Amino acid sequence: MSKWYINTGEHGDVVLSTRIRFARNLAPYPFPAKLPVSEKYTVNELVRTALEDVPALKLQYTDMNQINDFEAVSLAERHLVSPEFVSAREGRSLLLSEDESVSIMLNEEDHIRLQVIKGGFALDEAFSEAGKIDDLLDSRLQYAFDDRIGYLTQCPTNLGTGMRASVMLHLPALAACSQLASLSATVSKLGLTIRGSYGEGSSAKGDIYQLSNQVSLGISEQAALENLKSITLQLATRERTAREELEKNPAFLDKIFRSYGILKTARILSTDEMMELLSFTRLGSIRGQIPVKTEVINELFVTMQPANLNSSYKTRFDAMTRREVRAEAVRRALEESDRTD
Amino acid sequence: MSKWYINTGEHGDVVLSTRIRFARNLAPYPFPAKLPVSEKYTVNELVRTALEDVPALKLQYTDMNQINDFEAVSLAERHLVSPEFVSAREGRSLLLSEDESVSIMLNEEDHIRLQVIKGGFALDEAFSEAGKIDDLLDSRLQYAFDDRIGYLTQCPTNLGTGMRASVMLHLPALAACSQLASLSATVSKLGLTIRGSYGEGSSAKGDIYQLSNQVSLGISEQAALENLKSITLQLATRERTAREELEKNPAFLDKIFRSYGILKTARILSTDEMMELLSFTRLGSIRGQIPVKTEVINELFVTMQPANLNSSYKTRFDAMTRREVRAEAVRRALEESDRTD
Repeated sequence: MSKWYINTGEHGDVVLSTRIRFARNLAPYPFPAKLPVSEKYTVNELVRTALEDVPALKLQYTDMNQINDFEAVSLAERHLVSPEFVSAREGRSLLLSEDESVSIMLNEEDHIRLQVIKGGFALDEAFSEAGKIDDLLDSRLQYAFDDRIGYLTQCPTNLGTGMRASVMLHLPALAACSQLASLSATVSKLGLTIRGSYGEGSSAKGDIYQLSNQVSLGISEQAALENLKSITLQLATRERTAREELEKNPAFLDKIFRSYGILKTARILSTDEMMELLSFTRLGSIRGQIPVKTEVINELFVTMQPANLNSSYKTRFDAMTRREVRAEAVRRALEESDRTD
Repeated sequence: MSKWYINTGEHGDVVLSTRIRFARNLAPYPFPAKLPVSEKYTVNELVRTALEDVPALKLQYTDMNQINDFEAVSLAERHLVSPEFVSAREGRSLLLSEDESVSIMLNEEDHIRLQVIKGGFALDEAFSEAGKIDDLLDSRLQYAFDDRIGYLTQCPTNLGTGMRASVMLHLPALAACSQLASLSATVSKLGLTIRGSYGEGSSAKGDIYQLSNQVSLGISEQAALENLKSITLQLATRERTAREELEKNPAFLDKIFRSYGILKTARILSTDEMMELLSFTRLGSIRGQIPVKTEVINELFVTMQPANLNSSYKTRFDAMTRREVRAEAVRRALEESDRTD
């Protein structure tokens, strides 16, 4: 079953993926920060049981304490859980659908962090899918909900809808034109925030940025979605214009082609260098200059992360060996994509 | 007819080419520095006439004052004339064989600078061929010769045999190991000198070095040749050992493959960057890691120099366009070599 990050959806030239996340808590229990481990497992079981008779979801249950470090980090690298969720794993569990589009973190900051992620720009689709699972849970569990405030969450920034909607954007041209700092300031005035692809505090490796709504209190889900939708489309338009401008610059084209040349031949590749080279190669792929399918690059962005490499080879590579393994895997993927083109 | 720089001869993994040069003067005339322009043309005509009935040589006569700047510089880039010869061209002429292996500069520092250049390591062959032409000129013209000193030349460093024998060496591994400074000191004690590929004062672009004899007085041609031969073989052995050592270093292999990757894809290539990338690619070609024929790289080292590009496209490119034209020409040459392999 193909993973979400392989699909290039609508506006896929700029929007890598769309994510809806609901924060929910169960009224009878204290927030996870105050919950004893044994009761955390009770919460885990309640949620698991509430969803186990929904065969369409095919959710797989994982006790985070039962998996090794790189399996856990690999989940974060695939954006299926938060980095924070991985850092302390006792009492925490994960429900994950086979195509990895639905993931439910149990006992992260809130009892339930329900997330639906889709390739490309698919806010309505993701919202509707998340909503169905949320309704189901709501009908079977007792959500912590206040009529005036809305959903109650541990952190006040999530109060209200408990919803965080976000899109992952590939913005190499705006980054190259140094337009992101000013865009970030503008976007923030509109109640949105731009961050690196791994959320708060992370840098934008591979020119991948996460744009998300900041406000969940006093605003409806629909209004938040419309706002995010409109800003995303504006950013996408600006990025496309910047790409067309940069394409007239031979030095920028040179950088695109060289990036592909290095990825096709390098014997050693660090994550950071790979992200940068993939970013330029992706641009060339989209503009038809580079004979690699964009889906292949989208996939490499995720699967060639350190823990994912360990996880897929079932080995804990030392840093140097991992760079060699990564270089070889990237070469093969590009050659294969070239052949099947 | 294939040019000398396309042939890879003996020890061609390290020795790109071999050159013998004789400095000769005509007794009845002052040295060129003291010779009026009109008499320079008399000297030019004398030498030209002396060789015009030798059809095997097929020498082409060029009045250096009748060609444009980039045609003149292109001759220097191909090592057919000295850079000095190009800088002031009045009264100077060139006799050049079709395969460019024989070139005779007239009225450079001396009346006659006869040069024979061969691909690979071919000191005896080049010496014998230069000797035949020298004998012919000697029988038809009146050389300035002193029984005690030998051939008389304008600069005392050429007195005696008037011979300069040199080999062009590709020493990327010794350069990478920073062994060249100490080798240069050793070699100098043995009466030889190591310089950049374009002679005195030039830097070693592409890790190409010229090793030549320094002493022409009080030593026979044969002794000088034997000395150069023996040091060349020792340097070649050291270079090969260094190459084998470096090949165990993944970072060095990575550099070789990336160099090829960049040459295959870049849209902009400066001469200096190209020389460096070609140097590593040549190493990979010789060691069988890179699917490009070594001859192709040897040729690019020469034909992609700035004036050669102008000359072969019969245009005076601006610097930026020339870099784009070079990048495209290099890409095509490598693709073609890859296909015909």
